[in-house]
Amino acid sequence: MEKKISPLAPPFPPEMPPVEGVCLTVAATGIGYKDRLDLLLVLLEEKTTVAGVFTKSHCPAATIDWCRDTLDGGHARALLVNAGNANAFTGQKGRDAVQTCADLTAAAAKCRTNEVFLASTGVIGEPMDAQKFEPFIRTMPAAASPKSWIEAAKAIMTTDTYPKLATREAGIGEHKVTINGIAKGSGMIAPNMATFLSFIFTDAPISAAPLQTLLMHTVEKTFNAITVDGETSTNDCLLLFATGMAEKRAVPRIQDHEDPRLDSFRASLEDLLQDLALQVVRDGEGASKLIKIIVETAKTHKDAHKIAMSIANSPLVKTAVAGEDANWGRVVMAVGKADGQIERDKIDIWFGPYQVACQGQRSEQYNEQMLSAYMKHQEIEITIQLNLGDGSARIHTCDLTDDYISINAHYRT
Amino acid sequence: MEKKISPLAPPFPPEMPPVEGVCLTVAATGIGYKDRLDLLLVLLEEKTTVAGVFTKSHCPAATIDWCRDTLDGGHARALLVNAGNANAFTGQKGRDAVQTCADLTAAAAKCRTNEVFLASTGVIGEPMDAQKFEPFIRTMPAAASPKSWIEAAKAIMTTDTYPKLATREAGIGEHKVTINGIAKGSGMIAPNMATFLSFIFTDAPISAAPLQTLLMHTVEKTFNAITVDGETSTNDCLLLFATGMAEKRAVPRIQDHEDPRLDSFRASLEDLLQDLALQVVRDGEGASKLIKIIVETAKTHKDAHKIAMSIANSPLVKTAVAGEDANWGRVVMAVGKADGQIERDKIDIWFGPYQVACQGQRSEQYNEQMLSAYMKHQEIEITIQLNLGDGSARIHTCDLTDDYISINAHYRT
Repeated sequence: MEKKISPLAPPFPPEMPPVEGVCLTVAATGIGYKDRLDLLLVLLEEKTTVAGVFTKSHCPAATIDWCRDTLDGGHARALLVNAGNANAFTGQKGRDAVQTCADLTAAAAKCRTNEVFLASTGVIGEPMDAQKFEPFIRTMPAAASPKSWIEAAKAIMTTDTYPKLATREAGIGEHKVTINGIAKGSGMIAPNMATFLSFIFTDAPISAAPLQTLLMHTVEKTFNAITVDGETSTNDCLLLFATGMAEKRAVPRIQDHEDPRLDSFRASLEDLLQDLALQVVRDGEGASKLIKIIVETAKTHKDAHKIAMSIANSPLVKTAVAGEDANWGRVVMAVGKADGQIERDKIDIWFGPYQVACQGQRSEQYNEQMLSAYMKHQEIEITIQLNLGDGSARIHTCDLTDDYISINAHYRT
Repeated sequence: MEKKISPLAPPFPPEMPPVEGVCLTVAATGIGYKDRLDLLLVLLEEKTTVAGVFTKSHCPAATIDWCRDTLDGGHARALLVNAGNANAFTGQKGRDAVQTCADLTAAAAKCRTNEVFLASTGVIGEPMDAQKFEPFIRTMPAAASPKSWIEAAKAIMTTDTYPKLATREAGIGEHKVTINGIAKGSGMIAPNMATFLSFIFTDAPISAAPLQTLLMHTVEKTFNAITVDGETSTNDCLLLFATGMAEKRAVPRIQDHEDPRLDSFRASLEDLLQDLALQVVRDGEGASKLIKIIVETAKTHKDAHKIAMSIANSPLVKTAVAGEDANWGRVVMAVGKADGQIERDKIDIWFGPYQVACQGQRSEQYNEQMLSAYMKHQEIEITIQLNLGDGSARIHTCDLTDDYISINAHYRT
């Protein structure tokens, strides 16, 4: 498949500093893909804590089952990610493959298998011969480097057209720490309490329990507030690793998620997750426009979220945006079909700064020509005021173009 | 827009007999569309009873509000349908337009306004100047004919590529009666307890109360078991008119929906509704293949329905079928994201006669070559066995192609 880079891609990847205690190494195994990186191994310092959020799919991949179980320990020493085969819906063969990967990785990283985290992405249902990874995993640690962030982001891509990376300097009290993150995702993206593949690393010393609470809180407004196609993957997985190496610089260890010294870190983490989330939407399969849906004055936040998601997942709204047609009637349709409380005759709608509907009907200021000009922008904002309460939600999505069809009609072949 | 006829269209429309007590008349007003029929008036005999099922959208069109209110009377003398303007999200202007249409139609049909039913389909949010219909509605009754079924079906089309008609001979006890139906629908089709535009006419003498029960029961397995794009229209409307003219031929009037003399009629009605429902799916915007999703041995019927709908509305499943790719992993994804009870490791999946998955993993008999050949068929059947209980569901949908995008990217412009 031809891979033209998304027109919404950031101009260049960020400069990534090292995160003390994190070394990365990649390989082009030829197992998942031909002639490109498709395997990532991350080695983590001894004291590394870990938090995770996983797909809510009822058909989770074997790697998801593994990570959920392993997360109970709260410690991590290694992360292995393969692209090209999802190892999902693979039954006992899948469980065996996961065990093999964990064994090989533990041997290479010189740690216990219950400190190894695994993620896979690619075709579902294809049995995976994990033994083939053996010569790669065995030799990869020798090449591990604290600098290989771009290579790592590239090694986990599937239909992505660019690698996704972000970094933030964050504070723990008055001390500085680093947060680096990579992500992959382009199709099969919907936020049903799930994410996609994303791995975040920090040198901050944060214990496993507060780390988990922190991650669950920050994911709601970031990765759980985007959608490309309403599809929830079997393999969605977000892991946050904290090496704790900043303790050497007298940064205090955080034991409680309500510790006020965590406030600045939390804000930086949310900012970084949102950055990666938007990078995923910007690489939505076939995307030509970024769409921001804002629902305000809903009865509840939950209603606002449902209504915003109904609009963001509507193929008719998304194709209209692709065609630069301000077909706001389809927004009305999507609001109407959503399972959230509304009063039709109180609804106001804006496209960017232009009010198109007021109190349940077309606005007196409606101007097709100005709207047509607005629709030519690369970023489109649609705002709904329900005039019922204090609930609000903000969802990012992309348009639906011919290219989504051509990318997905022949994904396996 | 170029309008090539759907490759899934039936080869020719059925021969429609008259239904005693029903006369149809159409006009090309130039208001909804240029140079084609866009207005339908149906005149009904005095004793006509009526039943209706409407969109569950929270933003229903003004015509839907009107029909819901008018249905309480249980009697109908006229039906007016315009295509090109949905008269939805039009506020007080929309209510005024509806009143004007009802007044004009009542005058032309010589009946009371509470015996007039109205339906609209087309662009949402566009104010409609109903007074413009006056010269047409006034003169249309003179041209009314019991034969104008194809013209009627054509006058209510929007993005449809062919008119949709069906007829059945049905029994009331040992007597014969006729059921004729027309429908429109192509996009914005999803069965959230809703339908699209469809009007059914019979000469059977059935009182309003049993007629309503009959319609609500038969709609569940027919119009509510199809989907094109998961979108629920603001204007979905199914009306069933019974003129009762067969009483003149000594056919007994049915007063109770449990009357055993209704059994054969019910079966014929369900058959006719299913015929029209499939005609709508076959005209799904951009459709190149008809897809039947069967979910069996679910815990409950409701679970089966949710899971079948999740598959039928999955853009990734639909694009794979369009690309003739047996990407059954996406079926796994759609089963997993559905809100229905499953046990991953018990699931079996078939594409047509070929088992692709058994007990939560790829089947031993899996044969990519045979599957590829199967995917070239125009009608694709996907069966899921959950092995949990007695629940089952059967949903019809179509694939998702480039043409859906091009049809919808520029619908208004």
